Amino acid sequence: MPESPIRKLVPYADKAKARGVKVHHLNIGQPDIETPKIALDAIRNFKEDVVAYSHSAGILSYRKRLVEYYKSVNIEVTPDEMIVGTGASEAILFALQSCIDEGDEIIIPEPFYANYNGFAINAGVKVVPISSSIETGFALPPMEEFEKAITPKTKAILLCNPNNPTGYLYSKEELEVVRDMVIKHDLFLISDEVYREFTYDNHQHFSVMNLKGIDQNVILIDSVSKRYSACGFRIGVLISKNKEVMSTAMKFAQARLSPPTFGQIAAEAAIDTPNSYFEKVLVEYKKRRDVVVGRINQMEGAFCPNPKGAFYVVAKLPIDDADRFCQWLLEDYNYNNQTVMLAPATGFYATKGLGMNEVRISYVLNVDDLNASMDVLTQAIIDYPGRTN
Amino acid sequence: MPESPIRKLVPYADKAKARGVKVHHLNIGQPDIETPKIALDAIRNFKEDVVAYSHSAGILSYRKRLVEYYKSVNIEVTPDEMIVGTGASEAILFALQSCIDEGDEIIIPEPFYANYNGFAINAGVKVVPISSSIETGFALPPMEEFEKAITPKTKAILLCNPNNPTGYLYSKEELEVVRDMVIKHDLFLISDEVYREFTYDNHQHFSVMNLKGIDQNVILIDSVSKRYSACGFRIGVLISKNKEVMSTAMKFAQARLSPPTFGQIAAEAAIDTPNSYFEKVLVEYKKRRDVVVGRINQMEGAFCPNPKGAFYVVAKLPIDDADRFCQWLLEDYNYNNQTVMLAPATGFYATKGLGMNEVRISYVLNVDDLNASMDVLTQAIIDYPGRTN
Repeated sequence: MPESPIRKLVPYADKAKARGVKVHHLNIGQPDIETPKIALDAIRNFKEDVVAYSHSAGILSYRKRLVEYYKSVNIEVTPDEMIVGTGASEAILFALQSCIDEGDEIIIPEPFYANYNGFAINAGVKVVPISSSIETGFALPPMEEFEKAITPKTKAILLCNPNNPTGYLYSKEELEVVRDMVIKHDLFLISDEVYREFTYDNHQHFSVMNLKGIDQNVILIDSVSKRYSACGFRIGVLISKNKEVMSTAMKFAQARLSPPTFGQIAAEAAIDTPNSYFEKVLVEYKKRRDVVVGRINQMEGAFCPNPKGAFYVVAKLPIDDADRFCQWLLEDYNYNNQTVMLAPATGFYATKGLGMNEVRISYVLNVDDLNASMDVLTQAIIDYPGRTN
Repeated sequence: MPESPIRKLVPYADKAKARGVKVHHLNIGQPDIETPKIALDAIRNFKEDVVAYSHSAGILSYRKRLVEYYKSVNIEVTPDEMIVGTGASEAILFALQSCIDEGDEIIIPEPFYANYNGFAINAGVKVVPISSSIETGFALPPMEEFEKAITPKTKAILLCNPNNPTGYLYSKEELEVVRDMVIKHDLFLISDEVYREFTYDNHQHFSVMNLKGIDQNVILIDSVSKRYSACGFRIGVLISKNKEVMSTAMKFAQARLSPPTFGQIAAEAAIDTPNSYFEKVLVEYKKRRDVVVGRINQMEGAFCPNPKGAFYVVAKLPIDDADRFCQWLLEDYNYNNQTVMLAPATGFYATKGLGMNEVRISYVLNVDDLNASMDVLTQAIIDYPGRTN
């Protein structure tokens, strides 16, 4: 297992804090938004005397409520087409284990969520990246790139939509291109849609579940972590209409007995979260994105696309080496006794050498802290000894 | 992934219930004992506004309290020597992934907990069984059996103590034999001690953590599921003093982000469970064991050792085929409109053909239901068409 490039920075952040420097954490996907009270109240009102194993596929009443949630976002599923996982992490692992044999290949557009590497290693699956580029705002690579990457060992394509780390929101048209390839080469399409709710500027999320003609090829990965700012629940779900996939995934689910009971109870209650909660959250995130994107694009030699989803951006900076720069920010730099912790984009690319001048920024802080962070970054890229232009 | 032989029986149990037959579940490890109120109150008093990811190794305050718990059972560990897992299930998987390479072998005395097979498949590890026998009450197989099984690919020995499915409690002397082999062949010793508290007749549990001279070889697997009747918490732990093992396990832990937050909070509070809770539980389980063992040994042609730990027994019955018998009990049989669901022992043996006339019985029901179950079983082995003597 490779160590994540973000993790490597943690000791430097700790040392910066020990020196009394305020570190703004723009490196993580932990939102500061409050978890809906309705979900926490369900836990506070826990009435049972024995906290038993749940069904290996998840508590049935929860899966039934999930059917309602998915209906509300225009996705039709049944409780039998779901296996509740310990976070999307476990759901992705089950997906890989259930539809890809050891040694087979999965195509993922890079940059991609670095933990996919860990799950792939875990499942014995080889990740084949195809590169998307900051110049196109990280749009889907053209069909030819997929075609070049496909071999007889290719068993699946994995997309994250809206995307972590880029924030890119794949359009219906882009997904239809993928659909055609899935049909042509008889592949699985695994779609991680945990940021479904986070879309901006009146853009709508389109789910792979609504692509026509590939019912049996699609596996949806989801989680309540971001939707309800409930990362600690550790509740995700794997969804597929393919009975063989579900039956195999169920064996893995049974081997680990059950997903967490408390998290399921809270997640079930969270389904009644009022729309006003999301409206408020989206207004807040849009404001934050606009601060980050706007401020970075004012920096000399920097460029940041304006993504339509999630709460991340990948920005290009005038730097020689993102890993070195991110370490330098923590180890050697402060501006008014403040600094920022960023995620070097190199960790999100599987192709060596890519992402060297890119960083991922999570806009999970309030606008004041984000502005203070951008003040630091503006000066830092001027002061950084490895500045490239 | 093979399907568990118990799971295969579930549809038959459902059909029996649909026919109005009362099914006594002696097939599962879900205790009916109440979870300590102190643990549930901690959840009911949850004060945070955001349910965030915890540290990947588990909440530090919980690990610090675990140090105290282990001290109370005479085991010395530090918070850094622990990674909190989503149940013992995840902890075992981390252990296999961290100390055994793909294709390597692990020796496990059989019968063993069937889900070990799933974790081994998951980790790409080959299980090599050595057989223990009901005639010796499932004592540790002699050293020669281990020696015969050891190859250059053998990397570890896995023990479950007290044992699921047999209830056998390994003595200090038996464990010292294992220790000598571990030293001689430079192996890891993985010990699943989730039933530590459940020992009877004044027998004391001896942990592998207290074997002299193999500090760097030992990995302890633990869980709160059985200790506090808290299976739904999904909280276990991997413990090792081997820094390399911990560092590798930590990468797997980071890839799945964190264990469940609510479960950790409840498990931390559970450490203050008063001794009186365990005393009451042990009195109850001992009564139950005595009913089951006593009643089975009164059945013509049946034999049940009197195990010193856990809450399981494996019994030999005068039957031709345990899978067929267990299915017949659900599909074709009732006694006063009641029947029993047992676990065929075949599922706990890796060696084909073993356990054909053995069943595992979990004594997780109250004494009245256990007596009713034994009434059913007494008559069933007389009425069963595949009776062998």
